[in-house]
Amino acid sequence: MTGRDGGADIGPIGNSPVVVLVRPQLAENVGSVARAMANGGLFHLRLVAPRDGWPQARAWRTASGADRILDAATVHATVAEAVADLHRVLATGARQRHVIKPVLTARGAAAELRAVCARDLRCGILFGPERAGLDNDDVAYADMLVRYPLNPAFMSLNLAQAVMVLAYEWWTAADASPARSLMTNETRIATKGELENFLTHLTAELDSCGFLRNQPKRPGMVHNIRHFFERGEVTEQELRTLHGIVTELALGRRQRGRGEKDSADA
Amino acid sequence: MTGRDGGADIGPIGNSPVVVLVRPQLAENVGSVARAMANGGLFHLRLVAPRDGWPQARAWRTASGADRILDAATVHATVAEAVADLHRVLATGARQRHVIKPVLTARGAAAELRAVCARDLRCGILFGPERAGLDNDDVAYADMLVRYPLNPAFMSLNLAQAVMVLAYEWWTAADASPARSLMTNETRIATKGELENFLTHLTAELDSCGFLRNQPKRPGMVHNIRHFFERGEVTEQELRTLHGIVTELALGRRQRGRGEKDSADA
Repeated sequence: MTGRDGGADIGPIGNSPVVVLVRPQLAENVGSVARAMANGGLFHLRLVAPRDGWPQARAWRTASGADRILDAATVHATVAEAVADLHRVLATGARQRHVIKPVLTARGAAAELRAVCARDLRCGILFGPERAGLDNDDVAYADMLVRYPLNPAFMSLNLAQAVMVLAYEWWTAADASPARSLMTNETRIATKGELENFLTHLTAELDSCGFLRNQPKRPGMVHNIRHFFERGEVTEQELRTLHGIVTELALGRRQRGRGEKDSADA
Repeated sequence: MTGRDGGADIGPIGNSPVVVLVRPQLAENVGSVARAMANGGLFHLRLVAPRDGWPQARAWRTASGADRILDAATVHATVAEAVADLHRVLATGARQRHVIKPVLTARGAAAELRAVCARDLRCGILFGPERAGLDNDDVAYADMLVRYPLNPAFMSLNLAQAVMVLAYEWWTAADASPARSLMTNETRIATKGELENFLTHLTAELDSCGFLRNQPKRPGMVHNIRHFFERGEVTEQELRTLHGIVTELALGRRQRGRGEKDSADA
């Protein structure tokens, strides 16, 4: 019906929150939303009264392969119908006054959604139309509001971007990646002993060439050199390269020295 | 030159990271990137060899008012030139092998960027072209790599979405919003004493109407009612409404009771 061919595999679909787009205007945005959902591991899409009807081939063109989400999307006449089988509903981007509800950050919302899903309850997140956002009637169906901490001087947030931030937080809430690691590929971080071997090699050559000939300053200079190399989380492979550099530079100096001597001899 | 009129105010521009788009292909994406940057409080944009030249009016059309970022964007021939005045450079989305570098999550990257900026050093983040991402030569200029934790089964991330996630984390890293709060507007959360007054009122009326007439079960029923009301973080205004509901329902019952008695009298 939309010329689609199944699209990409998008990973396992567990009990994950339903994204409910309320009166979305542009089908291209619905496609971009599906792409962002797939990025963050959200797979269930519901559309409430999409302005231009549904399905729309334009959505599949901007989904970048997240076709399965669009294929499975359902259309509903009202918010009430779209959320009827859910246990917990969050509403994003609402700026209504006279609403008494808990307000979560995007990160707080992700934690809430993870906790609700872990209890085998079904939850959903409402996103309003591109131009106006959710109105008071829509928000009334939500248990909680979500407000992203973003630059208050520039809050114009694209619909797919709004979904992206929440999908990213949803994924991150269950991710155990260390905030920092070292990509070492085939090699590994050098031990302090391996680094010591290199520093011994380097110091010997620096003694030999006269770089450390100022004896009173020598201990401080050796310390400074150590400080630099200890700081860099050097790998075993890099140490071998450094050994090679020192050996070759020293060899070049000796050969040059010999050459000069040879010339002097001549 | 591009028909722009200055655009929206986008807030104060401090020492914030430079976004470096390396060989961006579509000017529309550059505009969407500027919009995402403004959302997250990033203001400095540099373009390395943009495919279609620069400026391009199409970029201003998708920036949704983040014109100042585009107006101030600079164009550079090479990555080396674009990062020459920076002290710390991060590269996103690279999947190179044979690279030995620290790898940060988006959140780890935001913390790193905040820490570097706090030391009055200048930092930047490289984003690659839409189709291929950064190549090995680009990545060689970076101190660290950034890898977003996202669905490994669907990593096709739109350029503006990639910038959005980092901009969002940048802003959030300095944001103190509580993960959960209660939006109460003109009212406030009721005290336990105010709630007690209401429960006393309700219990009295339930005694009066006979709802609690089963004396052995009465303590348990009163407890259950309390459990419900204690759970809801009720506001002072809502308590007044609840008082009114109980009063009116009880009054209705009494009037109906009187009416029935009146009829019986007639």
